[in-house]
Amino acid sequence: MSKGRLEAFSDGVIAILITIMVLELHIPHGTDTAALRPLLPVFLTYVLSFVILGIYWNNHHHMLQLTERVNGRILWANLHLLFWLSLFPFATGWMGENHFATVPTAAYGVVLLLAALAYYLLKTAIIAEHGPDSTLGVALGRDVKGKISPAIYTAAIPLAFLNRWIAVALYVLVALMWIVPDRRVESHIRRAQGTATGGR
Amino acid sequence: MSKGRLEAFSDGVIAILITIMVLELHIPHGTDTAALRPLLPVFLTYVLSFVILGIYWNNHHHMLQLTERVNGRILWANLHLLFWLSLFPFATGWMGENHFATVPTAAYGVVLLLAALAYYLLKTAIIAEHGPDSTLGVALGRDVKGKISPAIYTAAIPLAFLNRWIAVALYVLVALMWIVPDRRVESHIRRAQGTATGGR
Amino acid sequence: MSKGRLEAFSDGVIAILITIMVLELHIPHGTDTAALRPLLPVFLTYVLSFVILGIYWNNHHHMLQLTERVNGRILWANLHLLFWLSLFPFATGWMGENHFATVPTAAYGVVLLLAALAYYLLKTAIIAEHGPDSTLGVALGRDVKGKISPAIYTAAIPLAFLNRWIAVALYVLVALMWIVPDRRVESHIRRAQGTATGGR
Amino acid sequence: MSKGRLEAFSDGVIAILITIMVLELHIPHGTDTAALRPLLPVFLTYVLSFVILGIYWNNHHHMLQLTERVNGRILWANLHLLFWLSLFPFATGWMGENHFATVPTAAYGVVLLLAALAYYLLKTAIIAEHGPDSTLGVALGRDVKGKISPAIYTAAIPLAFLNRWIAVALYVLVALMWIVPDRRVESHIRRAQGTATGGR
Repeated sequence: MSKGRLEAFSDGVIAILITIMVLELHIPHGTDTAALRPLLPVFLTYVLSFVILGIYWNNHHHMLQLTERVNGRILWANLHLLFWLSLFPFATGWMGENHFATVPTAAYGVVLLLAALAYYLLKTAIIAEHGPDSTLGVALGRDVKGKISPAIYTAAIPLAFLNRWIAVALYVLVALMWIVPDRRVESHIRRAQGTATGGR
Repeated sequence: MSKGRLEAFSDGVIAILITIMVLELHIPHGTDTAALRPLLPVFLTYVLSFVILGIYWNNHHHMLQLTERVNGRILWANLHLLFWLSLFPFATGWMGENHFATVPTAAYGVVLLLAALAYYLLKTAIIAEHGPDSTLGVALGRDVKGKISPAIYTAAIPLAFLNRWIAVALYVLVALMWIVPDRRVESHIRRAQGTATGGR
Repeated sequence: MSKGRLEAFSDGVIAILITIMVLELHIPHGTDTAALRPLLPVFLTYVLSFVILGIYWNNHHHMLQLTERVNGRILWANLHLLFWLSLFPFATGWMGENHFATVPTAAYGVVLLLAALAYYLLKTAIIAEHGPDSTLGVALGRDVKGKISPAIYTAAIPLAFLNRWIAVALYVLVALMWIVPDRRVESHIRRAQGTATGGR
Repeated sequence: MSKGRLEAFSDGVIAILITIMVLELHIPHGTDTAALRPLLPVFLTYVLSFVILGIYWNNHHHMLQLTERVNGRILWANLHLLFWLSLFPFATGWMGENHFATVPTAAYGVVLLLAALAYYLLKTAIIAEHGPDSTLGVALGRDVKGKISPAIYTAAIPLAFLNRWIAVALYVLVALMWIVPDRRVESHIRRAQGTATGGR
């Protein structure tokens, strides 16, 4: 079963989510710079969610590069990930419009956590199809960041009720941790493409 | 005629429909968990429609994998399917915002029924192009689920006027029936790819 | 220069336009069938515009199948076509929400006319790149429907001020005229693919 | 690492941005031509932003045609470009709805400037991967328009406070400058495709 449409469909959904989020930046009625000030928290949450969706797209891209075969379980694990990602515009808007109020900030963390777990399940389904000893199994097996991220989100959600800025800081921390490209995967891809014909 | 663009276009439309539906989850004004409670029926219908669109994408993916040629009739049968799928956000929103009121719940079933019939017509058009004795004709010929689904929807629509929860339960039943991957098609694909060069 | 991205981009824009139009079907507040009645003209215009966009996607698909090379002029002619198509949701909504009032009905015709002219310019640009004696030049050269359509639209616009239903009938007529697949192009494609390796 | 998904994702985002902008053309309540008049500035800004996004898509298309390899830095430089492009609907709507008021007109220039700088960074990242002496490095090295454009935008932003029409005129000027296809790149592509097997 080809992975081409799975990639194309995921690209489509993520591209639309990124651009739908920007609709929460409602055009202000005023025409001076002061009219932009109330938009600042909405803008900042947009930047955060844009970066996180960018990270997901990036990692998805890397992981699918290594993937050779796709089965029914992988298709559904992928749809499950897209489901939680599809709640980003809602969670982002609720947190941004309420200037990082406690409950919306914790709810944002819940969506982040469930998306991270869905990504983990997708990775597990892909490794299961290829075998833990395959190039992909080895490359993705020791995924430290993939295991730490849900742990940090799990800690951030209750901490939001203590001080919401701790939660926000933890969300930003995870994003920064991921922006650094995963050199292990990249080197594996390069090696794999050196031996095989590679690429589409 | 290549099937690449037909797949890409269908992927695009379904990806957009899935993400447009989430816009019905209007961001609440309150900032406590109670503010989320009135959104619950909207959220649940979103989950149902997301799963059903996911099933359509999945089955479409499987069916087009087997398809070798595309003709004008197939292109239009596909557009006809996309038309009924495009009414999902409307039907989902009407049912969700009115907390599964009778008429919107029945109307949701009408859209499900017409989409199921459109899928059947598309399948028929594809089999007609390839011949009933082709790999695809054999693989899709005994499509029990494809015949039962419209029958269940047809029963659910009048039953909604008796008790709307019966209709909702039947919609969920059909979705569950389809989530199980169609092993027959998968095995046929595997066999077909074993003999041919396969895949794109 | 590859035509792959031009096709993908056009598919994306047309897929989004088709699904954005459905947002004009505002979810009614009532929960009985009477609540759907005021939506009927909006629904009918949606069906008409969906079919017309489907025809454009279909014809675009056929024409690009025959296209071998893409140059800067073709890219811009394609963007010019997409610009007029992008006004479909606006024109459709204005006509539908005002129950086929005279001026919106005429304005709808203006958008149809400009899109048809843009398609003609795109076709001319593609023929110019490949030469009038190429397979494509011959296949698209005698494009009777492509020449009649703008003429009918040009007649329909003033006729809308006489009786708006004449204009609507003419828009429907052109759509019906195009739904019939262009057998000449299909046969040319089949012949071209018989001699060349063809297809992507 | 393949460039296919980077192109597909960028196409998706730009296609959605172009079509989301058109939603700012709110359907008027009146049904005569006078009802369209207040929409004129919104329409004109839409045309301008459509053309500018078309130019970005066009140039992106050309640049990626020459690109052979994609790395993590290029992926992020591309996402960074898409981020600023994603603010086009907001900036366009704010300027259009306020009939080219001073601050929104200057803000539009800020978004144009940041997008132009992001494009420059993307180009730099691609040249860095391929080497300044590669086909791509030579073809894109002397990019006069790419250097002049940010300079004009930088001048236009303060000039908007003197006279906003100067700023608008400069935005239009840059767009016109780019509509002319970059013959140097096209000729390089043609030459490169003459020696290599080329194309996807």
